[in-house]
Amino acid sequence: MRIDGRNSNELRPVHIQKDYIMHPEGSVLISVGNTKVICSASIEERVPPFLRGQGKGWINAEYSMLPRATEQRNIRESSKGKVTGRTMEIQRLIGRALRAVVSLEALGERTIWIDCDVIQADGGTRTASITGAFVAMALAVNKIHSEKKLPVFPIKQFLAATSAGIISGDQVVLDLNYHEDSQASVDMNVIMTGSGEFVELQGTGEEATFTYDQLQTILGMAREGIDSLIGVQQEALGEIASKIGKG
Amino acid sequence: MRIDGRNSNELRPVHIQKDYIMHPEGSVLISVGNTKVICSASIEERVPPFLRGQGKGWINAEYSMLPRATEQRNIRESSKGKVTGRTMEIQRLIGRALRAVVSLEALGERTIWIDCDVIQADGGTRTASITGAFVAMALAVNKIHSEKKLPVFPIKQFLAATSAGIISGDQVVLDLNYHEDSQASVDMNVIMTGSGEFVELQGTGEEATFTYDQLQTILGMAREGIDSLIGVQQEALGEIASKIGKG
Amino acid sequence: MRIDGRNSNELRPVHIQKDYIMHPEGSVLISVGNTKVICSASIEERVPPFLRGQGKGWINAEYSMLPRATEQRNIRESSKGKVTGRTMEIQRLIGRALRAVVSLEALGERTIWIDCDVIQADGGTRTASITGAFVAMALAVNKIHSEKKLPVFPIKQFLAATSAGIISGDQVVLDLNYHEDSQASVDMNVIMTGSGEFVELQGTGEEATFTYDQLQTILGMAREGIDSLIGVQQEALGEIASKIGKG
Amino acid sequence: MRIDGRNSNELRPVHIQKDYIMHPEGSVLISVGNTKVICSASIEERVPPFLRGQGKGWINAEYSMLPRATEQRNIRESSKGKVTGRTMEIQRLIGRALRAVVSLEALGERTIWIDCDVIQADGGTRTASITGAFVAMALAVNKIHSEKKLPVFPIKQFLAATSAGIISGDQVVLDLNYHEDSQASVDMNVIMTGSGEFVELQGTGEEATFTYDQLQTILGMAREGIDSLIGVQQEALGEIASKIGKG
Amino acid sequence: MRIDGRNSNELRPVHIQKDYIMHPEGSVLISVGNTKVICSASIEERVPPFLRGQGKGWINAEYSMLPRATEQRNIRESSKGKVTGRTMEIQRLIGRALRAVVSLEALGERTIWIDCDVIQADGGTRTASITGAFVAMALAVNKIHSEKKLPVFPIKQFLAATSAGIISGDQVVLDLNYHEDSQASVDMNVIMTGSGEFVELQGTGEEATFTYDQLQTILGMAREGIDSLIGVQQEALGEIASKIGKG
Amino acid sequence: MRIDGRNSNELRPVHIQKDYIMHPEGSVLISVGNTKVICSASIEERVPPFLRGQGKGWINAEYSMLPRATEQRNIRESSKGKVTGRTMEIQRLIGRALRAVVSLEALGERTIWIDCDVIQADGGTRTASITGAFVAMALAVNKIHSEKKLPVFPIKQFLAATSAGIISGDQVVLDLNYHEDSQASVDMNVIMTGSGEFVELQGTGEEATFTYDQLQTILGMAREGIDSLIGVQQEALGEIASKIGKG
Repeated sequence: MRIDGRNSNELRPVHIQKDYIMHPEGSVLISVGNTKVICSASIEERVPPFLRGQGKGWINAEYSMLPRATEQRNIRESSKGKVTGRTMEIQRLIGRALRAVVSLEALGERTIWIDCDVIQADGGTRTASITGAFVAMALAVNKIHSEKKLPVFPIKQFLAATSAGIISGDQVVLDLNYHEDSQASVDMNVIMTGSGEFVELQGTGEEATFTYDQLQTILGMAREGIDSLIGVQQEALGEIASKIGKG
Repeated sequence: MRIDGRNSNELRPVHIQKDYIMHPEGSVLISVGNTKVICSASIEERVPPFLRGQGKGWINAEYSMLPRATEQRNIRESSKGKVTGRTMEIQRLIGRALRAVVSLEALGERTIWIDCDVIQADGGTRTASITGAFVAMALAVNKIHSEKKLPVFPIKQFLAATSAGIISGDQVVLDLNYHEDSQASVDMNVIMTGSGEFVELQGTGEEATFTYDQLQTILGMAREGIDSLIGVQQEALGEIASKIGKG
Repeated sequence: MRIDGRNSNELRPVHIQKDYIMHPEGSVLISVGNTKVICSASIEERVPPFLRGQGKGWINAEYSMLPRATEQRNIRESSKGKVTGRTMEIQRLIGRALRAVVSLEALGERTIWIDCDVIQADGGTRTASITGAFVAMALAVNKIHSEKKLPVFPIKQFLAATSAGIISGDQVVLDLNYHEDSQASVDMNVIMTGSGEFVELQGTGEEATFTYDQLQTILGMAREGIDSLIGVQQEALGEIASKIGKG
Repeated sequence: MRIDGRNSNELRPVHIQKDYIMHPEGSVLISVGNTKVICSASIEERVPPFLRGQGKGWINAEYSMLPRATEQRNIRESSKGKVTGRTMEIQRLIGRALRAVVSLEALGERTIWIDCDVIQADGGTRTASITGAFVAMALAVNKIHSEKKLPVFPIKQFLAATSAGIISGDQVVLDLNYHEDSQASVDMNVIMTGSGEFVELQGTGEEATFTYDQLQTILGMAREGIDSLIGVQQEALGEIASKIGKG
Repeated sequence: MRIDGRNSNELRPVHIQKDYIMHPEGSVLISVGNTKVICSASIEERVPPFLRGQGKGWINAEYSMLPRATEQRNIRESSKGKVTGRTMEIQRLIGRALRAVVSLEALGERTIWIDCDVIQADGGTRTASITGAFVAMALAVNKIHSEKKLPVFPIKQFLAATSAGIISGDQVVLDLNYHEDSQASVDMNVIMTGSGEFVELQGTGEEATFTYDQLQTILGMAREGIDSLIGVQQEALGEIASKIGKG
Repeated sequence: MRIDGRNSNELRPVHIQKDYIMHPEGSVLISVGNTKVICSASIEERVPPFLRGQGKGWINAEYSMLPRATEQRNIRESSKGKVTGRTMEIQRLIGRALRAVVSLEALGERTIWIDCDVIQADGGTRTASITGAFVAMALAVNKIHSEKKLPVFPIKQFLAATSAGIISGDQVVLDLNYHEDSQASVDMNVIMTGSGEFVELQGTGEEATFTYDQLQTILGMAREGIDSLIGVQQEALGEIASKIGKG
């Protein structure tokens, strides 16, 4: 039994509240247990300089935490005058993952800005951000699709993310909360599509190593978790869900 | 009649939701019309270097907006690598205002960190931040007071803030929304105590000037608005409200 | 009696030396008691990007202190790598105040850069900067007006600034020096036009509050001080003074 | 056949030149094909603040490229005034990987600084850095071990890294050079120990996804490559190799 | 004949006004022709970390220009967020030069902060800064010497600086103004002591070279100029001049 | 006798290895005793904004040290977020020196980027950088000259640099190593052309001064050293050497 009573292969309760803030083209508040992230997707009608004139779009992500999203207050990155390495890793990961399931050609010369702002953190903020950002992006894309700005619906597949890892020496568990994460010897973030293919796999031994067999168990558990998360996404998106993969 | 149907001297609907996020000692979500701010108060058991050993506490405030809190997406200050002048002005204002109604001696050698994060903006974010931050601070102070860490309750008075200004050439209005604010010729932020004294007054002609008589009308209207805001604060605080001023 | 022997409503001696440095289109050395500021106004024949093509001009101000303008040496902001919040507040204030009395349309698509460099500080540096910058600006504007670059003289009114505040608990005094300022419970900066209208009002209780009646006394005293300051400006400008408000 | 004539599962030629520069406690020049990295290991007799007094050591890594290590000249990060996200990711990865095979307790309160400076780049710079840094670290650790500063030899296992990925749609290949890497749809970095356990696994679909079966092929190929790389490390280390894992 | 009518070996008029600003322990306004620099010397009763506990003092210099000290307005270094290479070169030069004529042991564990702020520039700002800073430093040192804080007077020799260079192809001239400097093919800054020894010599061909014979002519001319400058320093210092070299 | 057994007027062994790295148009590894610098020259087919449209080229230099090029590890400038004053001085010096012997008109509208990266330091890194950079530049220029991109060969003269100084009170020595440099009372860097003219002369008394006679001895010794260095450059360049000065 885990500290919060879950089974090893059990996700925390997941909720996705659509249209959480009024200005972005798409936005959600996702909660995965006590982890809560505001994800917004903004459409900008131009692309970064390196892509101009190629008829392709781009997706860029930024990630941040409120200072008191965590148990101890963190200094704001704006006060520090720079973005930390951890933040950069996470925002590069979010952008890369979303780009893997979008036809940038079908998107046309526009940028989708994804903002993931963690308002409360209890482990798994990067995977919750990806799962939530996918829905915010779908809402924003649907908005411009409804306005007839896109020839086809450019999102090719569903996408969600979760973590699995090893705690207490050898217990493989799904969706680690902060308490578990801080004690885990191995932590793997898995990002998969609705069709069960990998988009990104990041497994790290924290002053530890892991075997080939442990890897297989972790991947199996993550696969099931992602199927459930995509179910929650589909429910949140309602009939928009049916447009995905029909581009 | 104003664009949203209000009378000149009418505030927008105000709501304060207590304990909005789990980690801070005190937190609220305040909404003033469509302006929404998460205000949190964190207690740190030490003071900045310039105050050490004097037996006094300190209150420090930070303010930020989510990139898409606004109609147009803003670049994050962490990405820019620096805090803008506007942000600095606002966070200095919030801190100064709160310090005016707290006995820093009674607070003892600890710092209250106030974080005001605007998740949705429609004008008046700085005054909403102050009104919300006061409640978050009272919750946090009450927490440590209940834990017997304070000799007396150090908050001396209620404190709230609103704006009033001149639109359409000569119409004095209370609590300007973004649309009104962007067209106002004069904008005044007023911060007052529960006993009707001024803590801060900042009136600015935007490429315009204002007369002594207009100033009097603005101040009168602000006074009434602040009385209403303090009513909402009292309701949110419940019985904690009765501790204020009894230090 | 005040520490330097002045009456409560008495300004310090004010001098404005024209054309203090040779390169700027307009420059002065203003001294208000021991506070000395070099104010220069530079004309640039273009406007910031957000104004291009609108036929309007802009006024931008920067403020700085020499490291040893003060009793204790300050670290240069260039060494710190950033401008402090206090500096930003002041330079935004100076720019906003000057823009209130200039017809930006009549100025045409050019920028006036105001530089206020405090070489010796004894309180009231921001108000002395505004009073001096107005004269430097008038000299610079007059230069291009004499060169027939402007259709009309774009400065609409005189503008000056001073402070008034409360010391020793309840004594309202005009034009606080550093010693008084550091002990004041209330400090108000007032910026007014030659016709007695307000451009900006910034009153702050320093861990204190002030009443409506005290506000009235402060404003009355400031009004008189500003009338005197405008007298000194007129004398410094000589016949250029007569062009102001005749645009 | 690959562009440089290698078989799919063939590494590029690997050379490790010991004691390449004179000042560091340990240093190598590693070349993996045309990729060349100077790796140095410096011993500092203290630990970062967060570890003080715990009797444990630390390993910290930094990574950089000469501006013209690449086909196109890159702007120096020192000129930009900040370290890029890519660099941060890589240096965090190197440090984490090395820490996984060292007993930080046996190292004692000292820090090993790893510097990986790429002087010529042709793909795989991060994995070459790890493989080379391991040898530099072993040399440095051996130096202080020989000076009797360590109770036991603190390196627990060999560690090396390589990449494998998918090119031309479905060809799985080992040790991608720059040309292959820039065209790969999937790129996986694998860091393993001498005993065949994973330390870190980072697989990324570049606007693409990969299946479970492809993952297995990639991992198998990487495993063989790492065995070869450890052979080269053992040869470079000579008799020091025999101390590893005997702590 | 030169553009301003001087002979080749003629300095511009030099004036040194003592005690120009009130707060520093020593200050001057030096003017060399139209170049005007406020030099101040501040005494701090401690030394930088690298010197602590060695019983020696330190001299540190900073240099800056007002934005409109020049024909074209310069962007402030505080706005840029960094100090330029030119500024760093100059302030390192000033500090090094002054340290060459002071017994840091006799100064004791204190730092002299030199601030050179150019308020008007017409060539030769770095040499004027050194010549003026020497006097400001002597005033500050004399102040603490008069207060009996120093065992002996620590300034060992007079020190002044000037430039000489080659214009119009082959004319060697002394003390170049801005117009000459911008056209010179060779520019040499010479810093010498009262006894005619070199402290620093910096000669630069600007996309040009110079011969051994030209060097001798330049040095001879600089020598004479420095003798005159030291005469002006002696006059400014009055009887303090007689303490120098008597430590 | 000197610490490494050299005579006073003896250079350390100098080697220049051509084409050290594969990507730059020109590159060398220069070693002067234990000082080793990778110098590369990159051709960019455009010039900085201030030169555009003038038909002239530019040469820009950057200089850096690996963190452990020195006895004590240095913090990277990229980690500090800024380039130090020492680095700026050196890179400005290198660029200026090279520009003195190149016809920027004959180079045409292109920039030569010089990168000097010190991989091992034992004194004299800036002069070794210049001597090596000259060869790298000649290789790069020869490359585009061979490709018929240049009308004439734009390098007008050979250029090399060395240091000479005073140690042990009065011993004048050539080419100081780190040990000597750290104890020298006077250090002079001399940059000369193949025809024996000066390009730059930088002599500094380190808390010391030097006489006119000492200067002459230093310059004579430097002259001989530079002749030898140019001999090594000629050998490294082979037949390219004969193109220099024939433009």
